[in-house]
Order: sequence, then structure tokens, then C-alpha cells
Amino acid sequence: MENNCFNMTKLCPDAHNTLGTVCIFGTGDFGRSLGLRLLQAGYSVVFGSRNPQNSSLLPKGAQVLSHVEAAQTSRVIFIAVHRENYEFLSAFSQELAGKVLVDISNNLMKNQYPESNAEYLAKLLPQANVVKAFNTVSAWALQSGSLDASRQVFVCGDNSESKQMVMDIARSLGLTALDQGSLLAAKELENYPLQLFPLWRLPIYIATGLTAAFFIYCVLTDIVYTFVTEGKNNSYRIVISIANRVCPIVSLIMLSLCYLPGVIAAILQLYNGTKYKRFPDWLDKWMLCRKQLGLVALAFAFLHVLYSLIIPIRYYVRQRQNIYIISQVKDNKTLTFDSTMSWRSDSFYSLGILGFSFYVLLGITSLPSVSNMVNWREFRFVQSKLGHITLLLCTAHTLVYGWNKFLYVSRYKWYLPPAYVLSLIVPCIVLVLKLILITPCVDRVITRIRQGWERKSVHVLHDTSGQPLFL
Amino acid sequence: MENNCFNMTKLCPDAHNTLGTVCIFGTGDFGRSLGLRLLQAGYSVVFGSRNPQNSSLLPKGAQVLSHVEAAQTSRVIFIAVHRENYEFLSAFSQELAGKVLVDISNNLMKNQYPESNAEYLAKLLPQANVVKAFNTVSAWALQSGSLDASRQVFVCGDNSESKQMVMDIARSLGLTALDQGSLLAAKELENYPLQLFPLWRLPIYIATGLTAAFFIYCVLTDIVYTFVTEGKNNSYRIVISIANRVCPIVSLIMLSLCYLPGVIAAILQLYNGTKYKRFPDWLDKWMLCRKQLGLVALAFAFLHVLYSLIIPIRYYVRQRQNIYIISQVKDNKTLTFDSTMSWRSDSFYSLGILGFSFYVLLGITSLPSVSNMVNWREFRFVQSKLGHITLLLCTAHTLVYGWNKFLYVSRYKWYLPPAYVLSLIVPCIVLVLKLILITPCVDRVITRIRQGWERKSVHVLHDTSGQPLFL
Amino acid sequence: MENNCFNMTKLCPDAHNTLGTVCIFGTGDFGRSLGLRLLQAGYSVVFGSRNPQNSSLLPKGAQVLSHVEAAQTSRVIFIAVHRENYEFLSAFSQELAGKVLVDISNNLMKNQYPESNAEYLAKLLPQANVVKAFNTVSAWALQSGSLDASRQVFVCGDNSESKQMVMDIARSLGLTALDQGSLLAAKELENYPLQLFPLWRLPIYIATGLTAAFFIYCVLTDIVYTFVTEGKNNSYRIVISIANRVCPIVSLIMLSLCYLPGVIAAILQLYNGTKYKRFPDWLDKWMLCRKQLGLVALAFAFLHVLYSLIIPIRYYVRQRQNIYIISQVKDNKTLTFDSTMSWRSDSFYSLGILGFSFYVLLGITSLPSVSNMVNWREFRFVQSKLGHITLLLCTAHTLVYGWNKFLYVSRYKWYLPPAYVLSLIVPCIVLVLKLILITPCVDRVITRIRQGWERKSVHVLHDTSGQPLFL
Repeated sequence: MENNCFNMTKLCPDAHNTLGTVCIFGTGDFGRSLGLRLLQAGYSVVFGSRNPQNSSLLPKGAQVLSHVEAAQTSRVIFIAVHRENYEFLSAFSQELAGKVLVDISNNLMKNQYPESNAEYLAKLLPQANVVKAFNTVSAWALQSGSLDASRQVFVCGDNSESKQMVMDIARSLGLTALDQGSLLAAKELENYPLQLFPLWRLPIYIATGLTAAFFIYCVLTDIVYTFVTEGKNNSYRIVISIANRVCPIVSLIMLSLCYLPGVIAAILQLYNGTKYKRFPDWLDKWMLCRKQLGLVALAFAFLHVLYSLIIPIRYYVRQRQNIYIISQVKDNKTLTFDSTMSWRSDSFYSLGILGFSFYVLLGITSLPSVSNMVNWREFRFVQSKLGHITLLLCTAHTLVYGWNKFLYVSRYKWYLPPAYVLSLIVPCIVLVLKLILITPCVDRVITRIRQGWERKSVHVLHDTSGQPLFL
Repeated sequence: MENNCFNMTKLCPDAHNTLGTVCIFGTGDFGRSLGLRLLQAGYSVVFGSRNPQNSSLLPKGAQVLSHVEAAQTSRVIFIAVHRENYEFLSAFSQELAGKVLVDISNNLMKNQYPESNAEYLAKLLPQANVVKAFNTVSAWALQSGSLDASRQVFVCGDNSESKQMVMDIARSLGLTALDQGSLLAAKELENYPLQLFPLWRLPIYIATGLTAAFFIYCVLTDIVYTFVTEGKNNSYRIVISIANRVCPIVSLIMLSLCYLPGVIAAILQLYNGTKYKRFPDWLDKWMLCRKQLGLVALAFAFLHVLYSLIIPIRYYVRQRQNIYIISQVKDNKTLTFDSTMSWRSDSFYSLGILGFSFYVLLGITSLPSVSNMVNWREFRFVQSKLGHITLLLCTAHTLVYGWNKFLYVSRYKWYLPPAYVLSLIVPCIVLVLKLILITPCVDRVITRIRQGWERKSVHVLHDTSGQPLFL
Repeated sequence: MENNCFNMTKLCPDAHNTLGTVCIFGTGDFGRSLGLRLLQAGYSVVFGSRNPQNSSLLPKGAQVLSHVEAAQTSRVIFIAVHRENYEFLSAFSQELAGKVLVDISNNLMKNQYPESNAEYLAKLLPQANVVKAFNTVSAWALQSGSLDASRQVFVCGDNSESKQMVMDIARSLGLTALDQGSLLAAKELENYPLQLFPLWRLPIYIATGLTAAFFIYCVLTDIVYTFVTEGKNNSYRIVISIANRVCPIVSLIMLSLCYLPGVIAAILQLYNGTKYKRFPDWLDKWMLCRKQLGLVALAFAFLHVLYSLIIPIRYYVRQRQNIYIISQVKDNKTLTFDSTMSWRSDSFYSLGILGFSFYVLLGITSLPSVSNMVNWREFRFVQSKLGHITLLLCTAHTLVYGWNKFLYVSRYKWYLPPAYVLSLIVPCIVLVLKLILITPCVDRVITRIRQGWERKSVHVLHDTSGQPLFL
């Protein structure tokens, strides 16, 4: 994890400067940090400023000139000014023609302007080669050199040679330059630093909602019910007993939600008789966040495992156990060993352990560096085959937990079924549908559809629609 | 894990198309998906087809021309036809001269043809620049944009400039382009999407074999033996008790199999007196899958940990414990505390915990992104030093488990030793051999051999053989 | 984890050799391994040697010529000789002018020479284009093809085209080439293979020191004290009971040490009224190894979890429990259930479980491949927000553990406070300071300072100092 090994070229700012000259327009915070970093890496740095005389905070070794003079010293010019001030650059359009202008700007909100800052700059100065880069690196990261976070510099632009020059500069600063294609990608690059786990939102909202709902349900049927009917205060059960009932329920439901959209998609494709009909929007969104759904489900399973393993050292459990034994002794009872109970208890735990192990395996293969290593066939094998086996194991674990409890009326407090029964609905639906989909006759049709085959009727239908039916 | 951030440029197909024109031969599934993706990224797309009039399913915005006309529109031509139809391309050899032909084909089996499709294409059209690329990306991944799996496009070809052009296109589609060298690599690229965890096979076969063997052994000596001699049915012990005996045994043996080839290699080098003599094939293969052996071993250790931690909440254990206490009370016995037993039990657990922690550490450092971060010296330190310490700890854990049990005849059911004794054989051999190899006198010789030194006699021997003795 | 898929082009050495000729000066171990690898990849290889007649061990298919002749066959020359012998190369300065010289040398010690080997070579042969590369790849890795460790070839040099040529060669050998900028980076590249976890040293020293100190402290107050005052030998408690007391203490202190420098830095910035004043050296170093501090802390937390979960199956615990119950039965006592105790015990475990889960989450996000995927804002969110929540949860876990024990004089053996009290000092300081820093009024000032704002007085001060106050 020595990712800091190359991140700071420990050079004095007055090093040989053999790498040529780089110009920076703007003497703000980012401009100054970038200037110092460039000096340290061995570049000559020239700042372009409105008041070249009055720029006291600039790093030692950097020159300060007027914009026009500065522009003449270098082919690459970093534009470290706000978008609002881009207008004034059009005054120098002559001097900037043919130069590589690096747009490093960020906005305060996503999609703040109809067009990206870089495209706006390119429109203002059509003769310059605008490259979007460095906006994902913070001034702090440049300054401190302790780039704990990403060292990736995303670069996009319409001119290959200009991009190459900017990527070379990024690399000589010890950063990783990644070509992101044409300037059309600038909008995405500008939105990137503003986003906060966009794909995680939906899964986390779902998890929060489910947790709250089942928590209230369990408190009602367990604690409130006991208090109302027997007058006993069981509230201490909230901390672990209830938590350990809610966690596995949420985990199981979210795991099945992870595989439900795939099943729905297959049914839609079967129904439409083609794969070229676009899925509804909600299904697309759902499918995009399956990985995040799965990882949140894994987190809940992890909590469930810890909560379960901690059981025997809880005061509540030990004390209850002690009281039970002492009462047995006093009543002179003899305990018998029931081998069916043993089978059931051990199967329950064994299914849970195997399910959790596969769960963890799925989690590991979704690490970016691991999933990059596997090919499409292997990825499908792990995420689809192993995924459904995990779901099957976890559902079986819950079924064995329930056993025949659902037969006893006493379990239905206030006519409400136990919470675990509710948690089984979605997983069982997914498993049954999946089972139908993998029967040979259905599977054959789906495979053909996925290879591009279409049912005639549909073909005609979308031909007349005249619209591209690809996604 | 926001790996979807850049994977789909959300553009309407009728965008500016500033990125130039790309030609696609073939209107099959992959061709159409690629065409749509290129249109979305801002390219103009021209399809080359036999029946330009009759290509109704193509994405809107794409042109369809005859092959000859289409070829003239672009320098880069994607060949989205099957290898069987490559022959017909030779008719256009004139038009395709100097073009960049991107071979995106895949086969149905590994090494289906003596030469790779790309090399075959290059032979058919010697004046064109053939580049192998995009065959590792699926049509589905291109279409849906939800590239959960790999976004890596492996590129190989003999002409640098052509490769660069194809890599630029891949990047502008939001994919990661990786240069894999000359067209000689095409065969590997074509085999890549067909493989299903090739390096994991041997370790998984070994694990399955060992698991089956020890499972049967334990069932025999534990359950069948009890049933035959005492008439008691202990079969409920299969689910967890037996499983938790088999898992650590398999894990320990596989961990030692992970370090055995290194020891054998060192002995072979000592014996040969040179490092330039090739190892036997089986040893090479064995050494290549050491990482996978270790990870499978870790999975079994993980199961063992979970199975062990679940012990106190099993019905079987709790009930037996209760029955025991009640009988003690009834018989009016007093329990005494044996501090030696406490030492032994705690050492046993402590060694296991430390061993497992090192195990997990080894697993983490074998994650691709982590092992990329460490240099050769650090990698060797972790995998060799820490690896052998792990093996030592786990072997000690098993030895303390055994303690003096092996002295009692009653443990040898049907004259068979307890399973754990069998599991100790390989680890102990590895540890003893390693101990001998790291003694200063032996270590000095090995180090010299590994630095290129050779014993005279051998030198002469392989000189006369006249063959290159490098691997 | 199939990272071996492309690492060895399985070609016979007498393949087409279409990739051009590469020259290697020096016939030592690395030179020979490299030569064989190049032949396998399809290059023609020419060795330059002092005694071309007497080079028997070279791979078949390679030519051996004198240095002058060899130099004329290729534009790229690998210099596989020791730095001590570079002098002799100046004799061929004419022949080497304009050539790409690849310096692959390594030293025996860090910073062995005032200038890097590559820079020294460039000075000796100013007309050649020196590129530093391949020094981070071992001969063994090249030979065996089983590149379990890093496949990264770091390349630096002052001439872009030359670097590109060397990177192309690296890629055609199946390695990953990474541009590291100008030849100024050569010193770092040469130090890189010699380092052994440099950033892990301080954290590991701290962990070792803390572990030793608290271990002795616990042995004193627990075992020695009992032995001296009661004459009882409790030494069996060392193995797990004491270990499980030391682990969480070290983990908690190290976690707080991970967040202390950030708090100190904020206070320093507040005090200085600017962010442009350099932090003291010790603080910089401390901040650089925060990630490693956190991961070592996580390892100790992991041990603590395993040690805690193993509690109920320890002989010591079970036996003590049995003795307790039997004595209760004999004395005819009735146990009562204390619901406050239950609340306390369950809250204690629940806080610990949540704390550990967040801990693991922090660990996962510090995996290189995961942290590369998040942007700056997300990284800050996870590492700062979630990090402080983790610290808060773990501190609360310890506080609940202590409860009111610190009130009882009997706990203060030899007037020493229980160890857990000592472990709370640093975390509480960090949390209180952090709490002050995030109050709106203080937070506003810090935010302004971090955006580049400065207090006037300071501005003048560092203007007069005339030094660049950037880091």
C-alpha cells in the first residue's frame, strides 16, 4: 500500500528546470499550488497576471508577467481562473491561437451551465486547443504531496497532440493521466468532483427504509406486545436481539432485490420477443446499482454474523442459561438429547456459514482490481451462478430457522406473521422465477433472443416506429 | 466503487460527430452495438454491407454503403464478420491497403485454428494494418453501458500508429485501452474470453479431492465406528463437527502445498548446481498456481473459523453442557480448575487466531491492486517470510490440538490414526526442509546459485548439450 | 485474479522476429534473462560483449558481437552492466550518440551515490538518450514468466520519443509500462526496489512500543499483583485474557493517533492564520503515515474481535462458569435477572460491533483500487466523517466497558488506574478538540483559511521573510 512512493518528487524549487516552461493564467490558490508543484518537478513556471507587480504570494522561482507576455513563453497554458472571467481571455485570442489551454475549472453545482466550462472556453477561443484536465485533483493534494486519495488526472480534448502534452505534464508530476476521449466528456469530468456516491444513494435509501420498517415491526410484535399482554418490560432486547433480527431480514431482501431486476429483464425480453426494445427507465436505474445493493446487503450480513457470534457472551444469554439450569436441578428434571433438534440447529448454522462465505466471495470479486482481472465469462459465472447459489443458501438458512414455527398460532401476535416470514417473500419469488427461466425450453428462447434473434411480429412493429430501438 | 462514472457518455446519437468517421464491416449483433456506441460518443458511423438496402435494424444516424464505398470513408475499419467469411475481404485488398483493420472476432473454442484470426486476416491482406482489439468486450457491455465487468480493451498489432488510433477510439468510448504488444499476442487475446479460471482448476480439484477423502475418513472413524462398536447413531455430527474437522485439515495441507514447490525448486537447484536447468513441467505448473492454492486454503480456514466460533450456540453443545452440569450436581461432584489445561486451551486458540490473522494478511496482499503497490523485495518478504510464519503457526496450532492424544490407543479406531495426524505430515516435511534450507551454509550456496553462479561440472554438461537451458 | 493470463508469450525463441532488433550490453544474469524474454516476444537480440567468442551461456538465437558492432544493429541498447563499469562506455560515445540507452541498474543501498546511475550515464554520454527502466523487475520474474509480483515497469527519461520506444518494448513483453516523468525521477526509481515498507515502519514501531508497554502494565497490575497480594498464580491469563486487553487498547490509541495530526494541523492553521505556513517536519511525517497507522490499528481490532469471540469456548471460561453454577446450586441461591446489566452488556457489544464494522469499511476504502475509484469529496467523506464516527463508537465502547469501575478503589491496584482508563486519554482529547473545531464559528474560519484566505498580520510577516512558504 506504499502508494506514496512516487507522489512527491523531493526537489528543491531551483532545480535544473530542464523540462521546459509552463504558463499559468491566474494567481489564485490552485494556480499557486500547481505552480509550486511544477517548479518542484523541474519546469520553469511563468504566471500571467493582471497586476504582475502585485503578486506577492507566488512560489519563489516563478516569473510573473502580463497575460500577453506570459502566453508567449509557453505552448501550454493552464487557465486557473473562474469561468465567469473567461470572457476577458477573448481579448488575447490572437496570442492564444494554437496554444494548448488547460481548463482546470470546477463548478459549484452539477450541470450548473448548459455547456461545460471547457466547451465554453473552446467556443470563445476556437483557434486554441482546449484540454480539460486536473479538475479532479485538489489544490491540497497538489500542495501536500500526500495524495492519499486518487492520483488520477482525467484528460479530455479534441486534439490528440495537445492531450499528450498535458498527460506528459501530469505524469512528470507523479500523477496518473487517463485519456477520457473528446471534449464532449468535459461535462462529465466537471460533474465528477461534485458527486457524492451517486450509485450508492438508492441502495442506502432502500436499506434505511427496510431497516426502519422491520425495526418498528419487531418492536411492536416483540416488545410492545409482551408489555401489553404480559406487562413485562423487555426493552433491553432492542439493542441486540431485535437488531440481530432486522439485519438478516434486510440483508436477505436486499440480496434478492439484487437479482430481481435480472429476472424481470429476462421476462420482458421473453415478452417482447427481442432484446432491442428498451427497458423502462426504473429498470435501467435498478440494474445499474445492483452491485451497490449487493454490497449493502453484505454489510448487513456481516453485522448479522457479528451479532450472532457475540450471543454466548451476552449477559442476557448467560444469565438466562444459568437460571434455566438451576431451575432444572431444583425441579429434579433430567434433560434429554434430541438428535433431530441437533440436525436442525446444525443445518441452520451450516447453511448460514456457507451462505455468508459465498457472500464474502461475491464481495471480494466486486473489488475493482479483482473484477478487472476476470473476463466476461468468469464475471458472469461468479456474479450470476454464485450469486444465485448465495441467495439459495441464505433463503434455505431462513427457512430452516423458521422450520414449523409458522404453524403455531401463538407465533402470530396480533395476527401479524413473524418478521422472518415477510423476509422470505421476495427471495422465494426470485428463486422460483429463476428456476423457471433456467428450464431448458425457456432458456433456449432467451439465449436466442440475447444473440440478436427477434420474433417477427415485433420486428415489423418497431420497423414502422422508425426509431432506433437500441438502448 | 463508482466505476460507472464514465462508462456511458449520455449523448444523443445526432451529436456533433466531431471525432471523424469510423467504418464497420458487418451488420451483426456486435457490429450494431459498436455502431450505436460510436455514434453516441460523437463519431460518424458507416456500415459496409452486402445488401445496403436491406439493413433495417441499424442504429439511426449510421450510413449503410457497399463494402467498397464504405471502406473509402474511413481509415479505421472494424471487421465485424466471422473468420469463415474473411476470404471475401481479399476481393477488396486494393481498397483496404493502408487501412487499419480492427479484428474483433472470437472463436468458439480455445486454439480452434492453428493461427489466430487476426494473423489470418493479416496474411490475407498483407497491405492492411491489422489490429486485434475489442474482442474481450461483450456486445451486451457495449450496449447497456453498465460495464460492471472489465472495461479493459486489449490491443495488439504490428503497426504502432494503427494501434494508437484504435486505442484512441477505445478511450473515447470510455474504455481502458491496454497495449499488449505485437500481433503475435492475438492468439492469447482470442483465447482470453474463452477461459474460465484456468489457474484455479488444479487448486479446486485438489481441494475437492482432499475434502472428499478426509470427509469419508472422518465419517468412518467417527460415525460408522461408533455405530458399529456402540450401536449409537451419531450422524448429526456430520453437519458441523465433521465439517469443522475436515476444513482445517484441507486448509493446512493446501497451505503447505503452497510452499512445498518452492522448497523442491531450491533442492533441485542445489542438486543441479545451477539455476539455468529447467524445472520439470509439473513443478512449473505447480509453482504457477501457488497463489490460487493459498487462496483456496484461506477459504477453508475462513470456514473453519466460522464453524469454530459458532460452537457455543449450537444446540448439541449447549445441551451436552447442561446435561453434564446437572449430572455433576446430582453426583455431588466438585469441579476443579486445572491451570495446565487452561494454558493448553488458550495457547491452542491463540496460535489459531494469530495464524488466521497472518493468513488474512497474505490474502489481502495477493489482491491485484495491493500486490501492484509493493516492490519485489516487499512482495518476497510478505509471501515468503510471512507465509512460512503462517504455516508454522497453523502447524503449531494443530500440534497443540493433538497434544498427547496420539499416545492413547483408544484414539486409533480400527488402527487408523486420527485425521489431524495425517494432516500434519506435509506441513512438517515442508517446515523441516525449509529449516534446513535457511541454515547459513545451505543458504549461502542457494543465494550464489540464484545470482547466476554455476558448479563447473554442470556447466560443461549443458554446454555440450548445445541447447538453451533458460526457461 | 488471473493476473498471469498475458504474462508469458509462449513462443519458441526462433519466431519471426518481426519486431526489430534490440541490443544488450553485458552478458550477466539480468542481461541473459532479458535477452531470452525479448527473443520469446519476437525481437532479434544482439549482445555486446568484451569477448564475443567466450559467451557460452547466452540464449540460443541471440547474436554476440563486440560493443561497437552490436551498437550499430539497434537504436535501443540495454545497459546491463554495473555502474562501476559505466566509464568504459565513454569510449564508444561516438557510436552511442543518438541511441536510446536503457539504464536498468540498481544499487545495493539507498542513495549510494550522490547522483542516480541514470543521470551519471547521461552525463558520461551527453549525446545519447538515457532512459531509466526495468530496474524494478527482477531477473527471476523475467525468466520464470510467473510474475506474481508487480508487472509494472517504471520508465523515466528526458526524451519523450525514447521513453515511448522503451515503453513499447516493455508492453510487448507483457509488462505494464508507467511513465514517471523526467530523468530527475531516476533516483527515486533506483531507491524503489531497495525499500522495505518505509511508510509502515513508524506505525509498526509505535504499535510494538505500545503493545510492550501495556502488556507489562497489565501483567503487573493483574498477574504480579494477584501473586504478591493473594499468592495465586494467574499466569495462564497471559495467553488470551491479557492479550485481549492489550489489543483493543493499542487499537484505540492508534486509531486516535490517526486523527490527532489532522486536529493539530487545523489548530496550527488557526493559530498561524494562514495555510501557507509550513507544518513542522514531524507533523508532515506523521500525516503521511496516517493510512498505515489506521491499518495497523485495524489489525489489532481484528485480533481483539477474534479473541473476544473465542471467549465462550475457552476451557478457562467454561470451567469457571460450571464451577460457579454448581456452587450456586449447592448454596441454594437463586439467580435474578438484572435488566440494567443487560442494557449495559448489550450496548457494550453493540457499540463494539458497529465500531468494528466502520473500521472494516475504512480499511476497505483504503485499498488502492477502491480509493482510486472515489473522488476527492467522497474520499474526504469516508476518511474524515466515517473515521471520526468510528473513533467515537470505539471510544464509547470502551467507556461503557469501564462504566463506573473507575469509582472503586479496589480497581486501583498499587494506586495504578486500570489499563483501559489510560487508553481513553488520547481518543477523548482528539474527540473534544474535533468537537470544538466543527462548531460553526471555528469551522467558518478554518474553511476560509483553507480556501486561501490569510490574516493580515501574518501576510506581512511572511512577506518580509522572503521565503516561499508553500510546502
